[in-house]
Amino acid sequence: MHILLTNDDGIYAPGIASLTSALLPVAQITVVAPDRERSATGHAITMHKPLRAEEVQLEVEGGRGKGWAVSGTPSDCVKMAVKVLLPEPPDLIISGINRGPNLGTDILYSGTVSAAIEGILFDIPSLAVSLTTFTPSSFTTAAQVTKIIVDQVKNRSLPPRTLLNINIPPLPLQELQGIKVTKLGFREYENIFEERLDPWGKVYYWMRGDAVDRDDDLEDIDTAAVKKGFVSVTPVQFDLTNYALLEEVKNWKLSLGNLKGE
Amino acid sequence: MHILLTNDDGIYAPGIASLTSALLPVAQITVVAPDRERSATGHAITMHKPLRAEEVQLEVEGGRGKGWAVSGTPSDCVKMAVKVLLPEPPDLIISGINRGPNLGTDILYSGTVSAAIEGILFDIPSLAVSLTTFTPSSFTTAAQVTKIIVDQVKNRSLPPRTLLNINIPPLPLQELQGIKVTKLGFREYENIFEERLDPWGKVYYWMRGDAVDRDDDLEDIDTAAVKKGFVSVTPVQFDLTNYALLEEVKNWKLSLGNLKGE
Repeated sequence: MHILLTNDDGIYAPGIASLTSALLPVAQITVVAPDRERSATGHAITMHKPLRAEEVQLEVEGGRGKGWAVSGTPSDCVKMAVKVLLPEPPDLIISGINRGPNLGTDILYSGTVSAAIEGILFDIPSLAVSLTTFTPSSFTTAAQVTKIIVDQVKNRSLPPRTLLNINIPPLPLQELQGIKVTKLGFREYENIFEERLDPWGKVYYWMRGDAVDRDDDLEDIDTAAVKKGFVSVTPVQFDLTNYALLEEVKNWKLSLGNLKGE
Repeated sequence: MHILLTNDDGIYAPGIASLTSALLPVAQITVVAPDRERSATGHAITMHKPLRAEEVQLEVEGGRGKGWAVSGTPSDCVKMAVKVLLPEPPDLIISGINRGPNLGTDILYSGTVSAAIEGILFDIPSLAVSLTTFTPSSFTTAAQVTKIIVDQVKNRSLPPRTLLNINIPPLPLQELQGIKVTKLGFREYENIFEERLDPWGKVYYWMRGDAVDRDDDLEDIDTAAVKKGFVSVTPVQFDLTNYALLEEVKNWKLSLGNLKGE
């Protein structure tokens, strides 16, 4: 089994090293990841400047990973791995382990999840994995959890155009409550723009945001599952059509008639 | 009615000027858009460097628009407009008119659509509008079409968490076939990485991609509608949960038992 690893924290981030280390005994691993942190890049791709890929050796616990550091976004990494760097497409793509949660509406902004979406656009089974804390923490347990999920999904075929978005609370193994299959919740960010003056008296802003979970009381929601100490596994697809509204909008009978003078 | 306009082609792009010009007679317009082109930025937001907003006057046909040029992405622009720049949230957000289509899976990469998603995350009705050509073209007809759609949706309330993604073919008004309510199609990009050598003999790549429409034969698909000369209107939401797969994944009975040694 050949697994492609990527992330949005950069190729030298501890999350991807732990994952490499956990998976090296059971699979061929290639790491193709951004050469620096590219968080919150969403599904950005690089079209207006050239890309570079530098071959690297990654020393990890228990072995050595190999791969490429790419001067682009997580999505660029997956495209480039599949189209240029690997002799043939991998059997599985795992994006992570991300430092910080990718829950609910977070995933709209997430470079981690976008890389996995890029994977399923190529029809390659893909997982996105996140450790739900920004506090520096060990990724070892999360990597082990990822490995057993990989073992369990290996023999099931994920349907086309579907990835699993996995969020793991930063708890010791024995305190994890189990694995819950969930829906995406709705996180609202209370964005605050902190106004400052530069040395020349001109205003600039730092944007920050605190997540407020809106659907937290609903059952089977990823945000709630993680708070209760469960590993959250959400099947994710990429069709944003609002099917429920199709017929209603058809009934509006939008027309160019007036404009055309008919 | 107060309309916030934004885009991903930059505040001085012709698409947003045409739209400003078409809407000035019927609404109060504020433009808050990136200070330069930010296409294919997806839903990227700017957290690791500060943002600036410079007040600008926009001379457009038939009047003068006012607004701010922001040093960030389309999503940053919407956040900053709502949270800092405007005294109160706008009644409607329109992102566009984009130069180039945002059809099917395009919208995953689209800064234009992401800005509109940002709008509905704030519970503000939002539209994303694109002219489906990269050839330099007049946006006048597309702006008129947008205006009549705005007129027609003004009195309907779009349900929460839903935007309309509008794609307008670059045809003279009388050649437009009408307005079709559509689902998102599946566009595959045949990415090509063009390999070159820099002056020092090191390899770099230009990524380009040609869209191949996979679902083109299906009825009511946005890509097909536009090819037939229709204005395409797709209701779009942002919940990426694959509901169809929830029960199946639950039946996998993913478990930490083995790992915990239970």
